[in-house]
Amino acid sequence: MEGPIKMNHTTQKAFQDFYPEEYSHCYGCGKSNPNGHQLKSYWDGDETVAHFTPKSYHTGGYPDNVYGGIIASLFDCHGTASAAAAAFRDEVRGMDTLPAIRFITASLKVDYLKPTPHGVELEVRGHIVEVKPRKVTVEMTLSANGEVCAKGHMIAVRLRE
Amino acid sequence: MEGPIKMNHTTQKAFQDFYPEEYSHCYGCGKSNPNGHQLKSYWDGDETVAHFTPKSYHTGGYPDNVYGGIIASLFDCHGTASAAAAAFRDEVRGMDTLPAIRFITASLKVDYLKPTPHGVELEVRGHIVEVKPRKVTVEMTLSANGEVCAKGHMIAVRLRE
Repeated sequence: MEGPIKMNHTTQKAFQDFYPEEYSHCYGCGKSNPNGHQLKSYWDGDETVAHFTPKSYHTGGYPDNVYGGIIASLFDCHGTASAAAAAFRDEVRGMDTLPAIRFITASLKVDYLKPTPHGVELEVRGHIVEVKPRKVTVEMTLSANGEVCAKGHMIAVRLRE
Repeated sequence: MEGPIKMNHTTQKAFQDFYPEEYSHCYGCGKSNPNGHQLKSYWDGDETVAHFTPKSYHTGGYPDNVYGGIIASLFDCHGTASAAAAAFRDEVRGMDTLPAIRFITASLKVDYLKPTPHGVELEVRGHIVEVKPRKVTVEMTLSANGEVCAKGHMIAVRLRE
């Protein structure tokens, strides 16, 4: 018996790669920011997912741990990207259709549950809690080695066209 | 008539410069992280203050605005530094005395009130809400051109020695 179908990211375009050019400069995830983290978010079934391996210098105060600001940054980018993807899905249309939809962060709460180990790939998962015409709520987890190290709760607000 | 005495940061050592060597690797504010932001926090009367000018590439999706993840990062570092300074003050001893006190972030909530303009110096201010033996609560603002653009609320937990 086969398991559930796994998304193949190599055949999927990232949410961020659909952002209109004028909104693609984000340090965390913009395709037009060569100095940035270039985070890429995708659907994985009903959840959204992104992977990121921090650079050697993205350490917290203690060098074996990942910097908390990077964790907040990953939630920030993955959350607004997930909100945009959820809004397109809610309107039953593709992210390549017009008008484009962009979200900004109204609020982000991060709970740091345990130190996040440095030197491994991190997985960020998003769960869409609610989609309203102007507002999307996203809950997220950040895991390392299969263990949840931090949780994020975002309220994202849709930019007016 | 003269105004209130202003702190002169050139004669004051930053909170972060008192961190023990093994906790000084933070990407946001560690003195031993040459690739990091090197944020420096100080007392300013009963409040704490830090200044930071984002790099050209620390842009949000829209290039005229500062990246939200950088704002969260500034709150993260300024909040834990303020918590440590408040704990030393509560024990009526200098930050150069032993035992060292270090705090980590348990939770951080950021409210993004308006876009933060890029290209100007940002000011982060901390207000110590509560000091408990194991926990300090800090409220923060981030301002650009004298206007508050974001608010931060942190619960910081003291590391056991």
